[in-house]
Amino acid sequence: MPSTATGAEHGNALPLLNEIRHALERLLASGETTVIDLGALPLGQQDEAELLAALGAGEVEATVNAGGPSSVRETSFHGVWLVTHRNEQGEVLARFVEVAFVPELLMSQPEDVADAVAALAKKLAFGQN
Amino acid sequence: MPSTATGAEHGNALPLLNEIRHALERLLASGETTVIDLGALPLGQQDEAELLAALGAGEVEATVNAGGPSSVRETSFHGVWLVTHRNEQGEVLARFVEVAFVPELLMSQPEDVADAVAALAKKLAFGQN
Repeated sequence: MPSTATGAEHGNALPLLNEIRHALERLLASGETTVIDLGALPLGQQDEAELLAALGAGEVEATVNAGGPSSVRETSFHGVWLVTHRNEQGEVLARFVEVAFVPELLMSQPEDVADAVAALAKKLAFGQN
Repeated sequence: MPSTATGAEHGNALPLLNEIRHALERLLASGETTVIDLGALPLGQQDEAELLAALGAGEVEATVNAGGPSSVRETSFHGVWLVTHRNEQGEVLARFVEVAFVPELLMSQPEDVADAVAALAKKLAFGQN
């Protein structure tokens, strides 16, 4: 008999958890990542709370300060990440489930790395004067 | 005349900053990542402080709780990350500069993702009973 501890995923979060499962399989098979915008789904507050409870918390917790504060945390399922964008008042603006080896937001982008090379070269030239 | 604000990189941190610059160039050219173990270098406390000051703080700050607490933060140079492992008392055990689009520690590993698929499938099967 299912215990009450597993009751969280019996609501409308269930189809979404199935979608996440398929996305994980795609990630493993082909490296394809999936981004699910929770705000674009007919998901009530209770459904969202159930989903988050079912996903749980994993090992990685990050904050990203790029155009407003965002948080990225790995769920208890490796490869399933929760990305939350907030405004300066801390209100949630958007929330995404990202199924990926690493969320886009945590990666340095090549154009930014190119800028960093130039900035570091400049800093070093300046320091050597 | 260099201002005092740029004085930080005049010490023994300078060769290391040059190495980081070359590592960034390799990253851009070939995707090759570089890990520099600061504990393995003849780097005094003052040198390390100068290095960290020169690198500065970037947009991403993360904690990873996998076999002891670790912190990962992007420096002000995109693609240059500082990874610090601590013990339960908060003492620094090891510190690395990682030049990569994303540090290894922030990525979900394929074998863990495979475990996650199995765990989620099991959870869903259980929830549907």
